[in-house]
Amino acid sequence: MVGGTFDPLHDGHKRLLDRSLAIAGPGGHVVIGLTTDSFAREKIHPIRPFVVRKEELEHYIADNCRQASCRIEPLNDRFGSALDADFDAIVVSEETLPVAVEINKLRKEKNRKKVDIHQISCVLADDGRWISSTRIYHGEIDAHGHMMQ
Amino acid sequence: MVGGTFDPLHDGHKRLLDRSLAIAGPGGHVVIGLTTDSFAREKIHPIRPFVVRKEELEHYIADNCRQASCRIEPLNDRFGSALDADFDAIVVSEETLPVAVEINKLRKEKNRKKVDIHQISCVLADDGRWISSTRIYHGEIDAHGHMMQ
Repeated sequence: MVGGTFDPLHDGHKRLLDRSLAIAGPGGHVVIGLTTDSFAREKIHPIRPFVVRKEELEHYIADNCRQASCRIEPLNDRFGSALDADFDAIVVSEETLPVAVEINKLRKEKNRKKVDIHQISCVLADDGRWISSTRIYHGEIDAHGHMMQ
Repeated sequence: MVGGTFDPLHDGHKRLLDRSLAIAGPGGHVVIGLTTDSFAREKIHPIRPFVVRKEELEHYIADNCRQASCRIEPLNDRFGSALDADFDAIVVSEETLPVAVEINKLRKEKNRKKVDIHQISCVLADDGRWISSTRIYHGEIDAHGHMMQ
């Protein structure tokens, strides 16, 4: 399982997705939680609509999801189906590692098996700071982390 | 990179090693930090000597390390070579996740790239609690987590 807003789909997201596919492996299955518009509204900058973000994600998956299968599901809160679903591993970024740790804590309270946590290190922009949607929105960098100014 | 005392080598350790090998992948390399006797002495129960633990580890590696290569190196403290070495990922248990997070923090301070963190969920014994060397030492469970009493 992996989740995000993916707006726009930048190189950090791609590392997250690529790693999820690699961990699922041949014959594996990846559930991608995509934040709904109402949940994504909590972000500090405008977000494109769910259907638009979903389409961009689907294109990337179609091009890169060779051996594992993928399903996109709407994410209405930080946890989505991760508290109850039967799955093996969650893939997170440095920012969302605490959410994964909390998911395992809550799963344990519900007598569900804990899942493995894979935290990728964030992809850095040319200036050595993280690529983030906020920085792209502000026009500092492009989706590959190249400086725009 | 992965580390531990591995005394005795129980099913939790084996999951840790197996996952490390899988993540390294074909042609990859795994560095296994094995605590030295002086460092392992901080444990609350007696530990077998380094050479004995190393031998058990080597046997397991010889049987399971098919596609990746492995090297055992002595671990004199919590970090070993993980602060300075050029590597991609560290594999930890639930107990040692904070050490991995600290390693990335210290690497960042040293201007080294952060590494991915893979946290496996601990293997449970028959009673639903973690398999641990301490419990095996106390004769509660065997190395596979079966109850001894």
